[in-house]
Amino acid sequence: MKTAYIENISDYSGKEVKIRGWLYNKRTSGKLWFILVRDGTGIIQAVVSKADVDEDSFNMCDILTQESSLTIIGTVNPDRRAPGGYEIQAKKIEIIQIAKDYPITPKEHGTTFLMDHRHLWLRSTRQYAILRIRQEIIKACRNFLDERGFILLDTPIFTPAACEGTTTLFETDYFGSKVYLTQSGQLYNEACAMAFGKVYCFGPTFRAEKSKTRRHLTEFWMIEPEAAFFDLDDNMDLAEDMVIYVVQQVLKNKSKELKTIERDTTNLEKVSKPFPRITYDEAVKILHDKGVDFDWGNDFGGADETIISKHFEKPVIIHRFPSEMKAFYMKRDPENEKLSLGCDLFAPEGYGEIIGGGQREENLEIVEKRIKEFNLPRDAFEWYIDLRKYGTVPHSGFGMGIERVVSWICKLSHVRETIPFPRMLYRVTP
Amino acid sequence: MKTAYIENISDYSGKEVKIRGWLYNKRTSGKLWFILVRDGTGIIQAVVSKADVDEDSFNMCDILTQESSLTIIGTVNPDRRAPGGYEIQAKKIEIIQIAKDYPITPKEHGTTFLMDHRHLWLRSTRQYAILRIRQEIIKACRNFLDERGFILLDTPIFTPAACEGTTTLFETDYFGSKVYLTQSGQLYNEACAMAFGKVYCFGPTFRAEKSKTRRHLTEFWMIEPEAAFFDLDDNMDLAEDMVIYVVQQVLKNKSKELKTIERDTTNLEKVSKPFPRITYDEAVKILHDKGVDFDWGNDFGGADETIISKHFEKPVIIHRFPSEMKAFYMKRDPENEKLSLGCDLFAPEGYGEIIGGGQREENLEIVEKRIKEFNLPRDAFEWYIDLRKYGTVPHSGFGMGIERVVSWICKLSHVRETIPFPRMLYRVTP
Repeated sequence: MKTAYIENISDYSGKEVKIRGWLYNKRTSGKLWFILVRDGTGIIQAVVSKADVDEDSFNMCDILTQESSLTIIGTVNPDRRAPGGYEIQAKKIEIIQIAKDYPITPKEHGTTFLMDHRHLWLRSTRQYAILRIRQEIIKACRNFLDERGFILLDTPIFTPAACEGTTTLFETDYFGSKVYLTQSGQLYNEACAMAFGKVYCFGPTFRAEKSKTRRHLTEFWMIEPEAAFFDLDDNMDLAEDMVIYVVQQVLKNKSKELKTIERDTTNLEKVSKPFPRITYDEAVKILHDKGVDFDWGNDFGGADETIISKHFEKPVIIHRFPSEMKAFYMKRDPENEKLSLGCDLFAPEGYGEIIGGGQREENLEIVEKRIKEFNLPRDAFEWYIDLRKYGTVPHSGFGMGIERVVSWICKLSHVRETIPFPRMLYRVTP
Repeated sequence: MKTAYIENISDYSGKEVKIRGWLYNKRTSGKLWFILVRDGTGIIQAVVSKADVDEDSFNMCDILTQESSLTIIGTVNPDRRAPGGYEIQAKKIEIIQIAKDYPITPKEHGTTFLMDHRHLWLRSTRQYAILRIRQEIIKACRNFLDERGFILLDTPIFTPAACEGTTTLFETDYFGSKVYLTQSGQLYNEACAMAFGKVYCFGPTFRAEKSKTRRHLTEFWMIEPEAAFFDLDDNMDLAEDMVIYVVQQVLKNKSKELKTIERDTTNLEKVSKPFPRITYDEAVKILHDKGVDFDWGNDFGGADETIISKHFEKPVIIHRFPSEMKAFYMKRDPENEKLSLGCDLFAPEGYGEIIGGGQREENLEIVEKRIKEFNLPRDAFEWYIDLRKYGTVPHSGFGMGIERVVSWICKLSHVRETIPFPRMLYRVTP
């Protein structure tokens, strides 16, 4: 007899199958048991009638507890009232293990309790749906870049030099010398872009930030495209197209999951070309108009991002930031030295920054000067300087934080639910 | 005028285009210059005739050096002799930057020199081809598992507990406490498999091994599927199917790159079902028959792997290892307690292990006993034990090391060329 997965159950209509999984819920009317079984691919109801099964199987229904593992043999019947359109008329039930006192019950639990039981919490319908949406988002990002000819090149996690100061870096002993865990693959991406034209990296990145906000994880996944000959406008176009593609793929392929988590998709459906593009100055004006006390030259804080983000229905791109606040590699605006050609993309509905990037400085002398001005160890950047010596070209790129995108698309109140095992200031377990 | 990428040049036959890239090579016949340009997507020849271009453009050809960046405007003409089937009749050449004394020349360089210049070495035809094959391998792995309904769930890099001893772990300070960089996502995968049925993780893993062999990196990428209800045979079937799929995709989509690196594909074409499956005992017999001094109960060393691997034309799966040499979570063979249900897959042509995995012990009492026997801190494994308490089921999985697969498929002499920026015992730069 065929073992079937619930997601493919329609292939077995009228046939006898074996389903293996876990008890999700059950109820009885005396002569009938209604057993909800999940197998990781879906949930299906099995109807256990005293008339159809042996006595053992029927009695087992009584002792089955939430998350007990079991096998059900039965016939697949179409049923319009069933969520997936089918139910199982059970013929036999075999218990693999009775789960005693499963800690997560239908009652409300506190966040700390649930996070302590993250390894089990993943089985809950809501977490299950969120992480399936995460998978779709990741797949969409990859497909988007692959289809546009970007080459995936994995940049290193162990990096010898600190790109933007050492205060937020995790450090490790590397056979007697100090190395840091990457915060971004960008500098290496730039080397790859000079060899492969259009490239991207996609991996975990690390920030030892003592932030305890709904937007921060110490370990998070970032996808970072970088392209030779792209200027700021090309970069903003790419970011816009990628965000639109990702949202469309989720709407198309994960509508069931969006429904499960009760995501109102009205705003997601509005994510279309063109996104508003405003300068940093214009963003500051929005804050001032709303009475926010904000000094020109500062970086936007979480609260500022929320306000700017809520001002627009669609994602908004902010460009041309004060040069002072940006990294050494950022190209200055040829029309105004005080501005740099950076661009951030803020998700709507108050979510704020999901993308940061810009055009890189390609001029050898300027890069050398900046490394000095920023007091960076020239030795460690010699290879990076080489990229400006040997056939330098204009180029741009950005990084998109996956967890923040998941958080926005699922409309979550905290990034901790966007990844199977989140790592935060006070949490590295389980 | 359209800026064209060389990989799409056939779309522009007869049309005028702009190509942006780097000088790869050049030669002259006096009145003509033949300029080879690479743009990251391919290489094309531009013919620069004194009669067709302005004097400046023609003279520029004289000063152009290897890796100088430039723009060429010209007409795309079909040419049967050209490698890509087209060449450019140049109309105008603009230099972006002249590269002075590019360090990598057509002459032979030593490995240390090339590794020190890895950021530039990536531009060489051979490295370029290898890394494009790497991308195809990664894509094939993902597609294979996605199509079979495996859900990607990223497991954490920061882990509080050491799974197989701390001697080969990288350690980092995590806001005052000690955490380790993951060696494998397996334990977390097991939690995910109980929630999602079939899952995989795919990310960097770390081993602080003081090995200086052609098979070892300290930072390497691993893809790890794990499936509920899979037994050892299902696991071996999955590994076999995945390896076949990956090889076929590379043969189909990267034939040009395989040619570039002069890979004889005869052996790759033989990678088909079924792979020989032998027990550990049978593998030991092969070694003994070849006169190797090998004690039953030991793990195979690099030299042993090479010998066993060379004994077969196809990849070979070795299963049922002595329990003593395997980890605490490995299920014992019900028919012989001395053996565990592990399975390794060795690539042919002497490459050895590319996959390691097996069936996991699902019994609560046995897992608890093993954790004690292995002197592991029970506290740190409490969550893992939970997986055996609440609906435990048989399950299996494996890990495949991407760099070793690339090394085999490209027939390289060392894994250092399989990843853009390799990390080894004596190398964390550039």
